[in-house]
Amino acid sequence: MTMILPVLIFSLIFSSSNAAVQDFCVADLTLPEGPGGYPCKKQAMVTEKDFSFSGLATLGDTNNLIKAAVTPAFVAQFPGVNGLGISVARLDFGVGGVVPMHTHPGASEVLTVVDGIISAGFISSANAVYFKKLYKGDVMVFPQGLLHFQINSGKSTALAIVSFSSASPGLQLLDYALFGNDLPSELVEAVTFLDAAQIKKLKKVLGGTG
Amino acid sequence: MTMILPVLIFSLIFSSSNAAVQDFCVADLTLPEGPGGYPCKKQAMVTEKDFSFSGLATLGDTNNLIKAAVTPAFVAQFPGVNGLGISVARLDFGVGGVVPMHTHPGASEVLTVVDGIISAGFISSANAVYFKKLYKGDVMVFPQGLLHFQINSGKSTALAIVSFSSASPGLQLLDYALFGNDLPSELVEAVTFLDAAQIKKLKKVLGGTG
Amino acid sequence: MTMILPVLIFSLIFSSSNAAVQDFCVADLTLPEGPGGYPCKKQAMVTEKDFSFSGLATLGDTNNLIKAAVTPAFVAQFPGVNGLGISVARLDFGVGGVVPMHTHPGASEVLTVVDGIISAGFISSANAVYFKKLYKGDVMVFPQGLLHFQINSGKSTALAIVSFSSASPGLQLLDYALFGNDLPSELVEAVTFLDAAQIKKLKKVLGGTG
Amino acid sequence: MTMILPVLIFSLIFSSSNAAVQDFCVADLTLPEGPGGYPCKKQAMVTEKDFSFSGLATLGDTNNLIKAAVTPAFVAQFPGVNGLGISVARLDFGVGGVVPMHTHPGASEVLTVVDGIISAGFISSANAVYFKKLYKGDVMVFPQGLLHFQINSGKSTALAIVSFSSASPGLQLLDYALFGNDLPSELVEAVTFLDAAQIKKLKKVLGGTG
Amino acid sequence: MTMILPVLIFSLIFSSSNAAVQDFCVADLTLPEGPGGYPCKKQAMVTEKDFSFSGLATLGDTNNLIKAAVTPAFVAQFPGVNGLGISVARLDFGVGGVVPMHTHPGASEVLTVVDGIISAGFISSANAVYFKKLYKGDVMVFPQGLLHFQINSGKSTALAIVSFSSASPGLQLLDYALFGNDLPSELVEAVTFLDAAQIKKLKKVLGGTG
Amino acid sequence: MTMILPVLIFSLIFSSSNAAVQDFCVADLTLPEGPGGYPCKKQAMVTEKDFSFSGLATLGDTNNLIKAAVTPAFVAQFPGVNGLGISVARLDFGVGGVVPMHTHPGASEVLTVVDGIISAGFISSANAVYFKKLYKGDVMVFPQGLLHFQINSGKSTALAIVSFSSASPGLQLLDYALFGNDLPSELVEAVTFLDAAQIKKLKKVLGGTG
Repeated sequence: MTMILPVLIFSLIFSSSNAAVQDFCVADLTLPEGPGGYPCKKQAMVTEKDFSFSGLATLGDTNNLIKAAVTPAFVAQFPGVNGLGISVARLDFGVGGVVPMHTHPGASEVLTVVDGIISAGFISSANAVYFKKLYKGDVMVFPQGLLHFQINSGKSTALAIVSFSSASPGLQLLDYALFGNDLPSELVEAVTFLDAAQIKKLKKVLGGTG
Repeated sequence: MTMILPVLIFSLIFSSSNAAVQDFCVADLTLPEGPGGYPCKKQAMVTEKDFSFSGLATLGDTNNLIKAAVTPAFVAQFPGVNGLGISVARLDFGVGGVVPMHTHPGASEVLTVVDGIISAGFISSANAVYFKKLYKGDVMVFPQGLLHFQINSGKSTALAIVSFSSASPGLQLLDYALFGNDLPSELVEAVTFLDAAQIKKLKKVLGGTG
Repeated sequence: MTMILPVLIFSLIFSSSNAAVQDFCVADLTLPEGPGGYPCKKQAMVTEKDFSFSGLATLGDTNNLIKAAVTPAFVAQFPGVNGLGISVARLDFGVGGVVPMHTHPGASEVLTVVDGIISAGFISSANAVYFKKLYKGDVMVFPQGLLHFQINSGKSTALAIVSFSSASPGLQLLDYALFGNDLPSELVEAVTFLDAAQIKKLKKVLGGTG
Repeated sequence: MTMILPVLIFSLIFSSSNAAVQDFCVADLTLPEGPGGYPCKKQAMVTEKDFSFSGLATLGDTNNLIKAAVTPAFVAQFPGVNGLGISVARLDFGVGGVVPMHTHPGASEVLTVVDGIISAGFISSANAVYFKKLYKGDVMVFPQGLLHFQINSGKSTALAIVSFSSASPGLQLLDYALFGNDLPSELVEAVTFLDAAQIKKLKKVLGGTG
Repeated sequence: MTMILPVLIFSLIFSSSNAAVQDFCVADLTLPEGPGGYPCKKQAMVTEKDFSFSGLATLGDTNNLIKAAVTPAFVAQFPGVNGLGISVARLDFGVGGVVPMHTHPGASEVLTVVDGIISAGFISSANAVYFKKLYKGDVMVFPQGLLHFQINSGKSTALAIVSFSSASPGLQLLDYALFGNDLPSELVEAVTFLDAAQIKKLKKVLGGTG
Repeated sequence: MTMILPVLIFSLIFSSSNAAVQDFCVADLTLPEGPGGYPCKKQAMVTEKDFSFSGLATLGDTNNLIKAAVTPAFVAQFPGVNGLGISVARLDFGVGGVVPMHTHPGASEVLTVVDGIISAGFISSANAVYFKKLYKGDVMVFPQGLLHFQINSGKSTALAIVSFSSASPGLQLLDYALFGNDLPSELVEAVTFLDAAQIKKLKKVLGGTG
């Protein structure tokens, strides 16, 4: 006897609309974002390419002064993660490379060392320092919103994959926030207690005005 | 003395915009969905019809091989539940009817037996089976994302109301996922360890290609 | 050749702890509740009985003045829904029965008419009334926190299943809140603009003091 | 040696799109709202004015019968709070002023007394009354969705700042919900047990019909 | 005829357990906190005192070098806000007072100026500065996790009430994070590009070691 | 002039309790888990070891029939991720290795290929197949709750890091759920439409009874 499974069950459920089921929401980056992410691309237009991304395959260019590079696969680069509460990035470190003190305002982060030796740390609201030397295969978590940093503490290059608990984790680099915009020097001085000379020196380097 | 209550308090609050208050968000199904649901229909256009739905009043057609029918009142059919984290559906079972193994990727489910006897079960991540014979009035919960099924184990028809913790719970029927699309047979074999003959047999029944 | 599937994959994942996987969290009602629900019963102690409940099978006693009865399957009665964002209840109406004006502070509700004719309504923050006569099989949604009510508007008894978007939706009955506790009558008068005589009359009925 | 910080790190992260980072989402009130709030205004158009609001600087007009005024800074007035789960309002009380019994369906509230003496209370689902006389500087919390009220219990005017756990908390004033719309008097009577005369009296005052 | 309202409806709902309803969860600070807050104090022990707090009534002591003081009403001081996603604090500024650059890792903030003139600003992930002079009654929002600061820019003292979208917003003061703990000076230098002398100077002031 | 920063500001904030600030919640695995995760370890006992984990450094043992191994860093192994909505795992593939069809009931997943070539796919609720061959450095996302699989499609071993949007993503392997427990064979047949012989064959392999 040939068994015939019920197409009827499906037709009832999916007949009303091809938007009947939402188990993902690939970002339509051409539409205005909302608090929870971008509107969804029409399902009929979605392909497997929306769920994959090749941008992390390329070695980041660490030929710069921090000798490090961050290559993100956030929702803006990787629309398939929209609304799913997850994204990743690639960190490349040259010898002596460093990802300077920064925060992700909207996400926690887990770092996985793929190659090399990385020293990383974060500082809690209670002002405790959690600092650890990480070897190939080690992972470390940086809770949401806290200041943290990563340094290549080995003698060769290093590579890490970092995962975030948001499709759009944000990134606030401390030096850029303080010295790379038009925040007036006197204001920076007043709210950081840094010396005027120090501020002006770093403003010059980072292109800050005022 | 006639008491006059303060219309002023309202005018202050509601004068700025008729979108000032959002305690519901009836789906405008003509606009692109986002990760949290559809944009809201304008309040001035909303009527009591948006908050009710008659589609579950009709007996589902169980004249099919599973002898069962699912009639959903999800956001696509019932725009009033948009953004409210809830929806319902009607399950009709003929004698011998079965809702085959499936998951709801985005919601937990509570089943309430309205008529008949239904045996239902789910399997946990720890691979434990929770299986129960349910009589009229009994309820059972199926936690989010886990494989589960329902069977008419009585001698007459059965009817259940199922509630979901999402306006768009999704539904992934195992047989359709494995045998009802263009996933190549060799791939199905490789990832399920089912025999090639078994796969081809069910592919034929369910219209799968490859 | 006999195919042997990899028990190793499991031993790696589940060996560390039998708490390794949490896809449900049956309430341990003997421990103190938290903001998200009760602590979980140990998995080894969980049985299928935790995921089902028979308390809704019994006709509620409507031999009272509202000629109605609410029988809940919330987390306190049905520990399997703990943390899953869903629960249900049974509404029984005698002829002329009514569930008086009330809110659920923590959940939206969907009502499904199982038998009879029920008129139901809610009032929005914008003070619009959404009122509808519902027949067998009809559903209606009441958005979170808004005042609503249900009335048996048929000539026989009525039965409904109501679903909530929380395992602990709460229930605030307006009359009880105003007249069934020790809120002083003058205060009730001041904040509701009801007449003193009216307040005292209902306080007497509902057992309120002060 | 002049230190040159890595502009490269930024160019990599922010080059793909100027929508790459979402750490806020100022409401574009001209677009349709969704369940989580309004779509975001383009970042290039956002200024400091979007994040501030002067509407609470003005004394509310308490020259009305409740001798009180509520001035909101919700998302409709203050687009910068969109999606951030927070908003505030100003409460002004004349002598004898009262904010009558009401709920916020979508938010908890914290009241801070800035000037004067305010007596405030709420009623729980378990029908307990929590009532407190608050002096300058005192704060009180009103959990989400519960009936509550505030009264000027001092001999002079009073002022409070109230904070909400939502950008769009909603406000349902009990008297308006019962007596200020077209809910038929017989229905109000049936679901509140208030006397017909009482209902008609307040309907007249509040402009209710039916 | 005397109308008698149905105590039965209540007995059915609330009979099973006095934990049947959770519309708040006052923190029991003696028990271990969880990710969503503290376990709930038993309802029978809860009083109106749990929902109010007088600690903000007192002028903060600004007789210090920043000439400012922060007095929190977070869950640790004000157990009634536990699990409700809201808290407040009082900011006092002497003449010239400043709340230095800081973040709240877990909350957005709205500041309301009660007295005086306060200049406040924050910096976005896209490195834009949003800076505004705020007068009495003005409000400003600081989105979650971003660096921000407040300065008394008037000629007299200033007072603000700040509201947070969490019962436990956290506070990370930049200077303390960099210079007030045992983070080695060389590490601070490496991850901030500040000069060694500057670091040592501030470490000395703030009591940092290493 | 020596600048002395205000220890006062801190003493005010942190004096009341050493639980005043919660920006992380390291799992205390000895206490009962709740719906949102484990209770927090006391801050004084927390060290940098809680935030790192070395278990992923070791090559998984792929000397099994699927020629693959999964090594998790979920909350049970890595307590620092508790409550943070993120975790990771390591996937090792021998030549011909495969991670069979499975779901994560509580999380979305992003896979990053570290070495080798991996073909991966998932099936949507709408029954579409998204299948992609991934090379070193490529990433792919698998939305929450959907059936998916990964296969080593290269000629050498392969290694991937997978990230999850939950500290406790769960894992339901299809074959184990169907054939590795005490779900009776007739039931499996009824709800999957697989042949009895096929079921018995796989039950034998996977140790299922009934």
